[in-house]
Amino acid sequence: IIQRDRLSLDSRSAPPSSKYFSVQCSPRVQYRITPPPPESGTLPTTLNGNTMLLITMDTASEVGNDSKLSVMYYGEKTEVLGKAVVHLTAVEISLDVDADRDGQVERNNPNKGSWMWGPNGHGAILLVNCDSERTYGKRRDSECAEVTRVSDLKDMSPMVLRTSGPAKLPEGYKLTMHITQGDAESVRVFGTRSTAENLFYKNFVKDYPLVLGSEDLSKEVPYLGGNAEMNFYVEGLRFPDKDFEGLISISLSLLEPSSQGFPETPIFTDRVVFRVAPWIMTPNTLNPVEVFVCSTSDNYQFLKGMRRLVEHSGYKLKVCHQYMNRGDRWMQDFPYDELLGPDFGYVTRMAYNEEVSSLDSFGNLEVSPPVTINGKNYPLGRIIIGVAFPTATKGRNMTKVVQDFLWAQKVQEPIALFSDWLHVGHVDEFMTFVPAPDKKGFRLLLASPDAGYKLFRGLQNDRHGQAKMFDAEEEITVDEILCDDKLRAENNYVQSCIDWNRDVLKRELGLDDDDIIDLPILFHVTEENRAVAYYPDMVNMIVLGKNLGIPKPFGPKVDGRCALEAEMTSLMEGLGLSCTYIDDFASYHKLLGEVHCGSNVRREPFSFKWWNLEM
Amino acid sequence: IIQRDRLSLDSRSAPPSSKYFSVQCSPRVQYRITPPPPESGTLPTTLNGNTMLLITMDTASEVGNDSKLSVMYYGEKTEVLGKAVVHLTAVEISLDVDADRDGQVERNNPNKGSWMWGPNGHGAILLVNCDSERTYGKRRDSECAEVTRVSDLKDMSPMVLRTSGPAKLPEGYKLTMHITQGDAESVRVFGTRSTAENLFYKNFVKDYPLVLGSEDLSKEVPYLGGNAEMNFYVEGLRFPDKDFEGLISISLSLLEPSSQGFPETPIFTDRVVFRVAPWIMTPNTLNPVEVFVCSTSDNYQFLKGMRRLVEHSGYKLKVCHQYMNRGDRWMQDFPYDELLGPDFGYVTRMAYNEEVSSLDSFGNLEVSPPVTINGKNYPLGRIIIGVAFPTATKGRNMTKVVQDFLWAQKVQEPIALFSDWLHVGHVDEFMTFVPAPDKKGFRLLLASPDAGYKLFRGLQNDRHGQAKMFDAEEEITVDEILCDDKLRAENNYVQSCIDWNRDVLKRELGLDDDDIIDLPILFHVTEENRAVAYYPDMVNMIVLGKNLGIPKPFGPKVDGRCALEAEMTSLMEGLGLSCTYIDDFASYHKLLGEVHCGSNVRREPFSFKWWNLEM
Repeated sequence: IIQRDRLSLDSRSAPPSSKYFSVQCSPRVQYRITPPPPESGTLPTTLNGNTMLLITMDTASEVGNDSKLSVMYYGEKTEVLGKAVVHLTAVEISLDVDADRDGQVERNNPNKGSWMWGPNGHGAILLVNCDSERTYGKRRDSECAEVTRVSDLKDMSPMVLRTSGPAKLPEGYKLTMHITQGDAESVRVFGTRSTAENLFYKNFVKDYPLVLGSEDLSKEVPYLGGNAEMNFYVEGLRFPDKDFEGLISISLSLLEPSSQGFPETPIFTDRVVFRVAPWIMTPNTLNPVEVFVCSTSDNYQFLKGMRRLVEHSGYKLKVCHQYMNRGDRWMQDFPYDELLGPDFGYVTRMAYNEEVSSLDSFGNLEVSPPVTINGKNYPLGRIIIGVAFPTATKGRNMTKVVQDFLWAQKVQEPIALFSDWLHVGHVDEFMTFVPAPDKKGFRLLLASPDAGYKLFRGLQNDRHGQAKMFDAEEEITVDEILCDDKLRAENNYVQSCIDWNRDVLKRELGLDDDDIIDLPILFHVTEENRAVAYYPDMVNMIVLGKNLGIPKPFGPKVDGRCALEAEMTSLMEGLGLSCTYIDDFASYHKLLGEVHCGSNVRREPFSFKWWNLEM
Repeated sequence: IIQRDRLSLDSRSAPPSSKYFSVQCSPRVQYRITPPPPESGTLPTTLNGNTMLLITMDTASEVGNDSKLSVMYYGEKTEVLGKAVVHLTAVEISLDVDADRDGQVERNNPNKGSWMWGPNGHGAILLVNCDSERTYGKRRDSECAEVTRVSDLKDMSPMVLRTSGPAKLPEGYKLTMHITQGDAESVRVFGTRSTAENLFYKNFVKDYPLVLGSEDLSKEVPYLGGNAEMNFYVEGLRFPDKDFEGLISISLSLLEPSSQGFPETPIFTDRVVFRVAPWIMTPNTLNPVEVFVCSTSDNYQFLKGMRRLVEHSGYKLKVCHQYMNRGDRWMQDFPYDELLGPDFGYVTRMAYNEEVSSLDSFGNLEVSPPVTINGKNYPLGRIIIGVAFPTATKGRNMTKVVQDFLWAQKVQEPIALFSDWLHVGHVDEFMTFVPAPDKKGFRLLLASPDAGYKLFRGLQNDRHGQAKMFDAEEEITVDEILCDDKLRAENNYVQSCIDWNRDVLKRELGLDDDDIIDLPILFHVTEENRAVAYYPDMVNMIVLGKNLGIPKPFGPKVDGRCALEAEMTSLMEGLGLSCTYIDDFASYHKLLGEVHCGSNVRREPFSFKWWNLEM
């Protein structure tokens, strides 16, 4: 219980010409002689220049100096030359956390000072407190160096200081809790006022004062005496990032006074380690909880379609109104002030000395369903972003500060696709994932000009070359599309860009061709050599369980039915998925986005716990 | 050999109303029909909407279009409706490195695109080119974006581009090598002029032009035709650091032309990965090669002692003369301009917005011998630095930029000790390691005021209380030292500071008390509460194999022999070590340093290879 202490038997205490010694001690005291004496008898033991006693106690003291150890010194014969007595006070100190991740702060876990990934791993975890307990005057709780509501304690990790010993520490001894300068920007520790312990209701934030933070790296904490537990609450302030692996440690030291104004020195230090939870994305295969859209002056038709889909699917639609979105319809980048609230937080990264481009939007930041690649499991899937093509000498990129952040989360190792060939430059313009009942549990859907031309040529072969797409003044026939050599050349180029991404996705997600479905989608290429969808880009869909909300493509009508919708519905039906086509033509497609860009979905979290990953 | 290519059988090529097809191909061409046709017969196969051919070739082409694959289309009966022919050119391309770490650049190692630690691991390695091939007008080779001498190629890692195929690539196709913007600050690639390949002597640096670097992230490389190998040389520019894990990748793509001025698109990309070698320290247990000291106007006595020790031990003494050291005697921070040369480099870190202190010197940066702690091996030992005590609200620290650098090397995971209690603040003022024939192969030596008092009290007990230490006007007796209560209190404080470090070292190096030897050394504490050695600090020694160069302590003389030297020699003799006492009193001790601070040793590298570490 007390640290092993060394007592050198002759430097300070032995009378001159002592040759032998014997030791007696109180029942709770154990000692060991080192180096071990050669004689096996009992008393006395030969004293030599290096003799030391290693002293331990197995029970905490109830009062100060309640145990002792005495050494008798003998000369050549057995006459007693002197006696030295050490008075001992044992104090049990343990700084405790939930190192076995079972929701309970166990007592003195031997692994509490380290952290290991995996189901056989160990180590406490910590949330970044990036939500807001307040619902007005909101800011993220991590931005205030105080407990904003007592409910905020639930967003923190519990830590308990357990002590046993006499009512008071010996004169001049004290306990101090400390963190390093480096960790101070990532963590705060709040305490509990000792008076609050006695209250039935602990409903006042003032009862949970700040103990450690960037202003206080070290603070004395009271020693309560007897068998005591003092509760602390640990708050994470930042996600892992390029310069922060995510591990933080908190130490507690027992300080011993020095004489004559020398600094105190610690004689015992206990240390616990936490890992901050990473930022995790949720793929389309997880069940939705809420769907978000913006209302603008011109998107009534879109809203109507979305409302029908979402309500039919049994989920909740949240509309961000115009006074809040200020005319921005791109729900993937929804104003965060509106959504911030209890258990709904956000994280931002600011770019310095870097150009921010369209590639920094959500829509260019997606995540795959869980996959296994050459035996390596990604039970949380892999993040997918779009960047400039690697051989391009110049091109738009997602900012380095955002890419670094994504890679630092580690648990959904990102894949970089080539999306700069698109005018808007988002990966969600050519790919998405839908759930499937078979194979890997999902299919990758890819936009495919080849599949588009195949469908159009099939219509022509079946004598539907005069079928028209689009409405009124924009209408165009299947024959006209197939005659357009320039459009065909543009789509060959687009297909080669998508094919390159297809190869990367197959390799990085461990997919076969059977895991991929090509959707009939044509593009055209602008004068800047960048592509936009020729008709509403069906792959840019919203996935709500088995219900898909798909941009209505306004394709050629055959027997009164849109041939593109028919093909799409037929491809999805095989997977048990139901398609709803939403008219986003005027309000989104014309502005170079579609359904997915105009919506967002909060999904149920993974049941798989991130700390069980094998890293 | 060529990438698997997909050929969709009906989108572009099938004549209307085709129902069946058959395939014929040249001997070197293989194909697979997907989805696999249900019929097991030979010919013809039913054509359906999704039929695709996956085509591969197992040998490179000798001339362009030397292979072909043809598809015959049939109608309801067996009349031939049409025939489509694909002409094929197979090119074999492999960017190769020494991924199995045997010194040879093997052909197309399947693991060349990833990196794994350990004896069963894989992945190529790269040196930081921080030495200088030039011996005049010196600067580090990594500072020049060119090959400074042909011999400099030996400091780089070889990379080979192997190609097989026809004499020329088909019109418009080309090869391009590329790196990412992020890697460009860490790596350069030099090539070989194709003319140089034919020369018997390749002794001109102009034959090795820069291919990739921060100015050129992507460059076309020639396709040589036939069976060709082109040599490249990869130069590492920076060590791992907080913002650089150490991995860099180099890619080679085959670009396909697009029609009508669209950008080219890559149809094949090969990628290799290197890890930059970490910066590694060499502990006292490794054999010395050279010893360095400074000569100043006043250190003749010290130099004489050092020369005797080093020459007796059979090593080389290099003296840095006054015109070069400009009066600085602290060889641990030796002027790097003098030493820089072939295979002798350096690395520096600049502090921004941070106060640089005495703790940033070598002397506060040491390394342990190899250790095993709770089953975890550190075959390269662990780096040891000194910082402010964790509970201190303010104190001197090693700068964060240096600490971050040390931690980023990973292979000698650092331990932070508390050294700010010392006036100079270096860990080498209270600890060192010496080789030992038994136990863990070494002993940790710790300065110990308790051991010092024990020795002095023993002298007093043996009636040598009037023995004098120091010379002439500074002399003081053993009795006087033992009477000094203030000195005793100061040393109690010092002992408690060392004890705290002793506990950390035991825990972090997995040591028992038997692995530690306490040396009799006293300190005194200045008015700023910081400690300096009371007499020459014997622990601040130079270790040259079995020969130790120890500051001459000028201790109390008993029978004409220094009692401190006698004790020290006796402690070291048990380990087979021989002690030489070097007079550094006036020229180093009085200036708050000792032998170790005034010397430096180049040692043989570890035989253990860092990439064999299990991380």
